[in-house]
Amino acid sequence: MQPADAQTSPNPNATISSLTELLGASGVLADPADKAPYLREWRDLFIGEAVAVARPSNAQEVCSILRYAHETGTPIVPQGGNTGLVGGQTPDASGRAIILSLARMNAIREIDPTGNTITVDAGAVLERVQNAAAEVERLYPLALGAQGSCTIGGNIATNAGGTGVLAYGNTRDLVLGLEVALPDGRLWKGLSSLRKDNTGYDLKNLFIGSEGTLGIVTAATLKLFPRPKGMLTAFLGLESPQQALAVFSRLQGLAGSGLTGFEIMPLEGLAFVLRHQPGARDPLETQYPWYVLAEISSGRSEEDAQALMMDGLEAALDAGEIVDAAIAQSLEQSNEFWAIRHGMSEVQKAEGASIKHDVSVPVAKVPAFLDEAIAAVLDMVPGCRPVPFGHLGDGNIHFNVSQPVEMERQAFLDLWEPMNDRVHAIVTAMDGSISAEHGIGQLKRDLLPGVKDPVALALMQTLKQAIDPKGIMNPGKVLALP
Amino acid sequence: MQPADAQTSPNPNATISSLTELLGASGVLADPADKAPYLREWRDLFIGEAVAVARPSNAQEVCSILRYAHETGTPIVPQGGNTGLVGGQTPDASGRAIILSLARMNAIREIDPTGNTITVDAGAVLERVQNAAAEVERLYPLALGAQGSCTIGGNIATNAGGTGVLAYGNTRDLVLGLEVALPDGRLWKGLSSLRKDNTGYDLKNLFIGSEGTLGIVTAATLKLFPRPKGMLTAFLGLESPQQALAVFSRLQGLAGSGLTGFEIMPLEGLAFVLRHQPGARDPLETQYPWYVLAEISSGRSEEDAQALMMDGLEAALDAGEIVDAAIAQSLEQSNEFWAIRHGMSEVQKAEGASIKHDVSVPVAKVPAFLDEAIAAVLDMVPGCRPVPFGHLGDGNIHFNVSQPVEMERQAFLDLWEPMNDRVHAIVTAMDGSISAEHGIGQLKRDLLPGVKDPVALALMQTLKQAIDPKGIMNPGKVLALP
Repeated sequence: MQPADAQTSPNPNATISSLTELLGASGVLADPADKAPYLREWRDLFIGEAVAVARPSNAQEVCSILRYAHETGTPIVPQGGNTGLVGGQTPDASGRAIILSLARMNAIREIDPTGNTITVDAGAVLERVQNAAAEVERLYPLALGAQGSCTIGGNIATNAGGTGVLAYGNTRDLVLGLEVALPDGRLWKGLSSLRKDNTGYDLKNLFIGSEGTLGIVTAATLKLFPRPKGMLTAFLGLESPQQALAVFSRLQGLAGSGLTGFEIMPLEGLAFVLRHQPGARDPLETQYPWYVLAEISSGRSEEDAQALMMDGLEAALDAGEIVDAAIAQSLEQSNEFWAIRHGMSEVQKAEGASIKHDVSVPVAKVPAFLDEAIAAVLDMVPGCRPVPFGHLGDGNIHFNVSQPVEMERQAFLDLWEPMNDRVHAIVTAMDGSISAEHGIGQLKRDLLPGVKDPVALALMQTLKQAIDPKGIMNPGKVLALP
Repeated sequence: MQPADAQTSPNPNATISSLTELLGASGVLADPADKAPYLREWRDLFIGEAVAVARPSNAQEVCSILRYAHETGTPIVPQGGNTGLVGGQTPDASGRAIILSLARMNAIREIDPTGNTITVDAGAVLERVQNAAAEVERLYPLALGAQGSCTIGGNIATNAGGTGVLAYGNTRDLVLGLEVALPDGRLWKGLSSLRKDNTGYDLKNLFIGSEGTLGIVTAATLKLFPRPKGMLTAFLGLESPQQALAVFSRLQGLAGSGLTGFEIMPLEGLAFVLRHQPGARDPLETQYPWYVLAEISSGRSEEDAQALMMDGLEAALDAGEIVDAAIAQSLEQSNEFWAIRHGMSEVQKAEGASIKHDVSVPVAKVPAFLDEAIAAVLDMVPGCRPVPFGHLGDGNIHFNVSQPVEMERQAFLDLWEPMNDRVHAIVTAMDGSISAEHGIGQLKRDLLPGVKDPVALALMQTLKQAIDPKGIMNPGKVLALP
């Protein structure tokens, strides 16, 4: 692959004036203060530099920027809501790149409640799409912490997950069609509302999850779903992840895709929430080693969701799969349960430094993974406090570890890489993934060759070379520079 | 792309002896009588010739054949159960190709009821996989007419559809991981049971639906589902496809993914079945212009499936969305209802020649499509008998047209291409697909450039060139020879 070469790049002023010609002055941010928010991600883990931030207002403008970049060998870093967790949206320090922000392209182009589809620009914020669906009594089921600022384009670039995956799938499963600007400036008009279409290679999925390294998604047609008529959440107390797996199988067997949430949390995590999250209350009277937040949705009624949950939990109690359960008596109480789960990451900050992993293993192996990984980190750092939580039904655990109370913050953080290595080794031995939903970006790029099948990695490089021969698309993300 | 060149191919005897060296004598069929069943598809629409049929017994042998083919420029035509409908599995007439049959690779490698996965060799017959799942109380939901002989590898190569798509998705949605032999003989070990994995490009979906033109699937890990505890079918009488769409929305809103079947049929189709299918009976007392076979499954019980169906149909009757309904009172009666639907294609043979289309449009446009397409073919051939039926919930209609009673068979069949053109033009104007589930193969290859976005087609060619630079993989299928 030919790297975008500093020597062949035009000087910054030439780039800025070319962009201004293409987009008008309002489409280009070149002033350091204006650029600043685009150059760093929210945790300040990644900070970069850029010639300018280009803010096109339509797909044709995106294409014109790419044609310019292709001709001049200028790196392009696409950016949506700037909420990514692996540095995929942040340019490197060279200052040669153009950040291409999709923020101005935020139209909801069309919504079809009968066909259950919505077509939106890539820069539309997830929450706006959720709301647009709700207005016509439909559900767009992607739901995640950053939904107030992340964009559909970013969701697609990273194949975003979240709490709705169990019943509705990852972002990949929600996309019917895409419009994509290719690295040489051609526009693939692949928007489609079709549920079935076997006319040639699946190009769509190649771009989904490619983190802006193969092209820029400019618009998408997404699946909508009927809005559940009833929804009930329960907060369960359990002795072990093995029990959680058993009750998961039971509830899924009973409710099918009506089981719309199943999140596991450890006692330590609940304790942190109760300590640091204003208004949080323990839903149960007794403490248990593990908790599950289960949500059941019904297309029929509130009563039906309730009956289903009750049937399932009574049988689970009888079978010794759960020890205790609290059923939400109101929407407010249901929100309280979810707030515990959603607070799990945030509250760890108040307990000092934490080392994080976003991993998945085959669902049946989650209990064994938790056993092994908890033992491993305790062996490595006695007194550390593992807070593994997440989407048990997808096999996806956010294996976060808080520092020992007495340890020095930086001394613990210095163990980030060796602890990652140890946890990832357990994951890999179980045929798991070291990035279940956050992607690779910069953060995990150099880990990839160690865990990925070498033929798969070579094939990825072949595809990158074929589609982006000049290597201008988000260089250094996912794959190392050649 | 470099075509596999006749001049550089070794002579047939050299190929046969090389294959025999690689696979042993039992792995190679070179005798004309032995080869014959592999050279033609079941309707005799496509007949080809081949040097030999190679029958490898494991993935390593598949790789060794591909290495040989790659070195010598010999075309490879992969073949599973030889049930494809577009000639993708049939070699051309040159006799230069090796047919690579996966039939001997039919092991069920592993089944995991807790994790809801099954891992099988590509040559495993679909029905065996369904049965293996049933033995552990699980469901592998892919279901189609050829299930007794089609293979998992063929299902994957063509992204097979069928009647289970509505609730469970296409084959694409059922595949968790793949093992694929690449055109140069490398083996990508991509088997995985993970529900979530964001470590790099989605290679899996590139091979799914590529009809053997990019590589050979040797094994797959597939999703299993909880087996429904109750299931109920109903046969509905309706005035119009518009009504069918309304009752579809209603039942899906109520049952969600519990709506596991929704098939539309016209009066003419039912009449053909009653006339030609032994034992067929009309489920309703009165005739209606349109019929729907609806199936609801419940994870809870028979009673629950029944209650759900009754609630839905009563409301639909009240709302004027259906005119009449028969509920199956037994498994036997349910099978009778399904037999009507499954007989729909077969019985047309007894009514003379028919011209077929496998198309899809956005779900909400199905009624308009049926109106326009029926009017168009009647205008073209007065007296012809349209029998459009299929998966309304997926927007996928098998738009089959039987000849006028008095017309000469061949005179009608001579209209195949102009009728295709006219129907496909309507489909294309509605942003539909000219091959919803059968694929492109040879049959529709030359139609593709007329309907596909030119950038998409160019991108397909770029990918083909990058992955199969020698053009040995199923040449002339999907894409024209370079």
